[in-house]
Amino acid sequence: MKQVDLVLTNAIVLTMDKDMNLYEPGAVAVDGQYIIAAGPENEILQAYSGKTILDCHGKVLMPGLINGHTHAPMTLLRGLADDLRLDVWLMGYMMPVENEFVSREFVELGTRLACAEMIRSGVTTFADMYYFEDSVAQATASAGMRAICAQTILKFPSPDAQSYDEAFTATRKFIQKWKGHPLIVPAVGPHAPYTCTDEILQMASALAIEFDVPLHIHISETALEVENMRREMGMPVVPYIKKQNVLEAKVIAAHCVHIDEGEMRTMKHTNASIIHNPTSNIKLASGIAKVKKMLELGLNVGIGTDGSASNNDLDMFEEIRLAAFLSKVDSNDPTALPAPQALLMATRMGAQALHLGEITGSLEPGKRADLICMDIDRLHYLPRFHRDPKGIYAQIVYAGKSNDVADVMINGKWVMRDRELLTLDENELAEKSQNYARQIDAFLLDREESVIAKLIAIGGATQEESFEVQVKVRLDSLQPVLDALNNPALEIIRKRHYIEYDTYFSFTDPDQGYLRYREDQFIDESGQTTNVRSRLTHIGVTDKEEFSSRVLLSRSRYIAPATQSLRFYREYFKPASEQEIEKDRLRFLVQYFDTEFFINLDTVKKPLEGYFLEIKSRTWSRKDAIKKGALVLELLNLLAPDQGDAIHQDYIHLISAEDKPHNV
Amino acid sequence: MKQVDLVLTNAIVLTMDKDMNLYEPGAVAVDGQYIIAAGPENEILQAYSGKTILDCHGKVLMPGLINGHTHAPMTLLRGLADDLRLDVWLMGYMMPVENEFVSREFVELGTRLACAEMIRSGVTTFADMYYFEDSVAQATASAGMRAICAQTILKFPSPDAQSYDEAFTATRKFIQKWKGHPLIVPAVGPHAPYTCTDEILQMASALAIEFDVPLHIHISETALEVENMRREMGMPVVPYIKKQNVLEAKVIAAHCVHIDEGEMRTMKHTNASIIHNPTSNIKLASGIAKVKKMLELGLNVGIGTDGSASNNDLDMFEEIRLAAFLSKVDSNDPTALPAPQALLMATRMGAQALHLGEITGSLEPGKRADLICMDIDRLHYLPRFHRDPKGIYAQIVYAGKSNDVADVMINGKWVMRDRELLTLDENELAEKSQNYARQIDAFLLDREESVIAKLIAIGGATQEESFEVQVKVRLDSLQPVLDALNNPALEIIRKRHYIEYDTYFSFTDPDQGYLRYREDQFIDESGQTTNVRSRLTHIGVTDKEEFSSRVLLSRSRYIAPATQSLRFYREYFKPASEQEIEKDRLRFLVQYFDTEFFINLDTVKKPLEGYFLEIKSRTWSRKDAIKKGALVLELLNLLAPDQGDAIHQDYIHLISAEDKPHNV
Repeated sequence: MKQVDLVLTNAIVLTMDKDMNLYEPGAVAVDGQYIIAAGPENEILQAYSGKTILDCHGKVLMPGLINGHTHAPMTLLRGLADDLRLDVWLMGYMMPVENEFVSREFVELGTRLACAEMIRSGVTTFADMYYFEDSVAQATASAGMRAICAQTILKFPSPDAQSYDEAFTATRKFIQKWKGHPLIVPAVGPHAPYTCTDEILQMASALAIEFDVPLHIHISETALEVENMRREMGMPVVPYIKKQNVLEAKVIAAHCVHIDEGEMRTMKHTNASIIHNPTSNIKLASGIAKVKKMLELGLNVGIGTDGSASNNDLDMFEEIRLAAFLSKVDSNDPTALPAPQALLMATRMGAQALHLGEITGSLEPGKRADLICMDIDRLHYLPRFHRDPKGIYAQIVYAGKSNDVADVMINGKWVMRDRELLTLDENELAEKSQNYARQIDAFLLDREESVIAKLIAIGGATQEESFEVQVKVRLDSLQPVLDALNNPALEIIRKRHYIEYDTYFSFTDPDQGYLRYREDQFIDESGQTTNVRSRLTHIGVTDKEEFSSRVLLSRSRYIAPATQSLRFYREYFKPASEQEIEKDRLRFLVQYFDTEFFINLDTVKKPLEGYFLEIKSRTWSRKDAIKKGALVLELLNLLAPDQGDAIHQDYIHLISAEDKPHNV
Repeated sequence: MKQVDLVLTNAIVLTMDKDMNLYEPGAVAVDGQYIIAAGPENEILQAYSGKTILDCHGKVLMPGLINGHTHAPMTLLRGLADDLRLDVWLMGYMMPVENEFVSREFVELGTRLACAEMIRSGVTTFADMYYFEDSVAQATASAGMRAICAQTILKFPSPDAQSYDEAFTATRKFIQKWKGHPLIVPAVGPHAPYTCTDEILQMASALAIEFDVPLHIHISETALEVENMRREMGMPVVPYIKKQNVLEAKVIAAHCVHIDEGEMRTMKHTNASIIHNPTSNIKLASGIAKVKKMLELGLNVGIGTDGSASNNDLDMFEEIRLAAFLSKVDSNDPTALPAPQALLMATRMGAQALHLGEITGSLEPGKRADLICMDIDRLHYLPRFHRDPKGIYAQIVYAGKSNDVADVMINGKWVMRDRELLTLDENELAEKSQNYARQIDAFLLDREESVIAKLIAIGGATQEESFEVQVKVRLDSLQPVLDALNNPALEIIRKRHYIEYDTYFSFTDPDQGYLRYREDQFIDESGQTTNVRSRLTHIGVTDKEEFSSRVLLSRSRYIAPATQSLRFYREYFKPASEQEIEKDRLRFLVQYFDTEFFINLDTVKKPLEGYFLEIKSRTWSRKDAIKKGALVLELLNLLAPDQGDAIHQDYIHLISAEDKPHNV
């Protein structure tokens, strides 16, 4: 009889080994960090004497779950912003908040919070990718969990690196520090092909190969990513990363929602693995990965929760279930991804997908003792049928809940007993995380108080500290002005023709002014569109003063190139109402008494119709503005002597009086 | 100050009313069965003095959830059979077991088990459809739950009615008994258009209108259902039921996965409501209902779990979450079905969808006190942001778990306090349901022990108690036999030509024999296929005896018309291997010495090639069989005098020797 540290008895043992051996009643012998044996209870008790013998009271005893892709510290951002498009969510909320708050302390706390939740839901191993990954590793090891920790590398500056050179230096140091740790496997995390460069990908692969550590990357998460790659590189994403030598490393590729069968075969041949993230992919409407096909081709496919900020939890039971469900509905086949296979993806195959197949993922002699005990005598499991021995997998996959997990052991050490966490203090985590939430709330509320601050938060907006001098009158027709422009007193420097599509956002609080999204469509001599430019302009309401009865002086506006779509800005700024204006504009840059002026001859088409003349000039000096104001009046008399009252309003105000803008 | 029975204080009150009023800290005043007021805590405490004042300690206090479609007693069949096609699951498992076990006692126990699970997950109202619905109503009322109980009506005999006339009589009595009950609303449940007749639908509608009770029905669950309806009736399902006057009743239509916009408009105009069953629809690969469009058109859409046998639980939190997720991925829009709207579908709008909008679904004065308290201080909710007041809905929808529900009140009475059920005994339910599971296991195991029993279980199989006399020889070509058939000693009564496609299932246990699925494709004189017939034949292995060295005598086989597809039988019988055989058969019915014989001239095409002659006759008598055996030998000499050894095997055995059948 061999003596071991622990024998777990009276359990339904699901080994998840190659033969899917199941023992009921079964037992498992554990010594130190290792599983020594798993088998029928009587056989194990005959062969092993345990220093401790633990009666599992009929619980299911199975390998701990493998969460194949997450961003643990983002648990601190759970529920910050939901029901948004990926770009609005990422650029409007996640990135500004991360830039402001992500630090070693944030990462350490967020990781511990994530570990607590993951242990409670039966996860023993996870694969992470974030900033300050050294702190992720530290917090994970102190919580007693197993993880692959990938230090993020980006082409942009990130919260923990001003440049990617800096990120590589830190990653090398990080790998050297953690390589060989019993729980932590350091890894290289080039974020995604579209956020890296060719060089970054090549360097990341070389570094991963040099130290024989995994390379964790996001691949083909959205259709847009693939479309852009095809347009820019003439190939889909997997061939592109192959060209950068990425597939020579031990790749863990998250998502792969939009890869084709050829790409799957390429990944299979290079032993790259895929992590399927069902909740994240459907919550963000990215799509449904072709898991059935991937498995048919023999790929190792694991399951991940992704970060809590896009999930919003770290519950692997929900992910396993959803993986099975989605595969069925997507392939139109209810027999697709049956329960035992789904559970395998979160255990043995999940470990293989993380290149940890020798270490964990099943209850087999020689593997580390990463195991969980689950209550299955609860209401939602009743009754239990024994006819089909595979029924137990269906019960766990289709009715199992994270709260059914009672005990969790990692690397031979208990981290939860009877639902009591042994390595983490929940009250401390709650208090500290609420503290962060308060600070983040304050930061965002402050920002959201003003449309200008929100505009600045997404970058690129500049305030031109100048004055704008302007006069505007309504015309009966354009021709008299066009004729008058031939007056020798003025010289036409440049003439442009374009069609302008403006969308004005207005807000519940009128003090917020307007935000104008303008698309300028340039028209050449032959009437063809040659170029389109989009700009955002913030128009305040209190910053105007009348210079004379006809000339308006206004402080100039915040202007930003509109790099995102109108739809993005609509969701991000959440206007109370919108108004569209379309006009044909002939724009002249003229010189008059050594001063440059812009002359706009507008044919407004929508929603009100009419002809307008605008004369404008800009200046940095108030004194100069007053001087120009006088010249603007002279010019007006020259070009349209018979016109009536000047109009002091922007087009949006003219319309407001005639035609109420529609609510959003 | 008005005195009331109970004031609930110190809660985050989500009223789910029309303005989505949310009070934090909030309070709710309850008197008798009714909600008297909901509002800010200080206002409520100033206006009402409660006989009892209950501090909710910061829990979320919200309306109880509405499970819009389920079959409560089927909870007793949870996990019985999973990962199967709808037809295999339904006809191979559910219906045989239901026919054997469903009784008043079964229904009563199953309902109580379902009620226990639903209360635990915050459900206060559900809409049911099953057999013995009076027992469902009884058990539900005794558990203190609110339900719409629809008595199923089918064109087939069912566990509680030999005919639909009987079902209608019972339904009328059932409605008369329960109409006006404070918790139970009786309803009429014509199962689905494809399981009813025009007359049943018309009668069901008339009955529902007569008593002003809801009509609960399954509509357009699968694409096949719609396809069949279009083929048979020339229209999709909603116009068809409209034609049968169904939409004149207060309709609750479950599923509606495959209805178009026109059908939605028809339903909207007639105030019919839809119950979306996300898990059931994707687990059975039925598809994803167009919920976004339904809501845009102003339909009342509720959410249901469907029965536990196809889910496998009654967890509305998972359904709400999944409804939101599926709507996003299906419409390719992550902003679709945002959290507050998803939660509405399971509360106020869910109640409206059950035509109970005046009674329950929100915390508003005058509605019944159906409410739940949820802990939201657990790990998976941390941290909580306050910036966006709608954030709380996202927390509940995207991270909420049924186990977070601590207290449940229905109609002013507590049915759960601090996670303790007050009206149901879980231990008793566990014991009794396990008892049923054992009986059902035994029934199915018994059936599965023999392929013949499984064949009989799905109906239509008959054992023809006769002897088959047979001789078979291999030929070099058919022509000599065709010529010999002109011999005046025999008269050709009938000649048929067909192509036969046979699939032989074999089983791990060789004693089970073979199951042959045969498609006979009839070929007319001109070579056209005129008709196809499918049959299942069970071929035993031990029931043959040699009559002479050339003639085989075998007891005849079990034969059944194959009304299901080959795929169905494959999944149902789970063969260990399969073998396909294709042959061209000329079949002659001939008379020889006043005795009829079948003569088959076979050109086997696949997988072995060759020509064969079979001479067969059947008889009820062993003595007659011997007599016929002698005649068979004579006939053989007449038709193929030079042939060698007779073949004593079925084609499947010939092939097995030459070409191993492939494993399934």
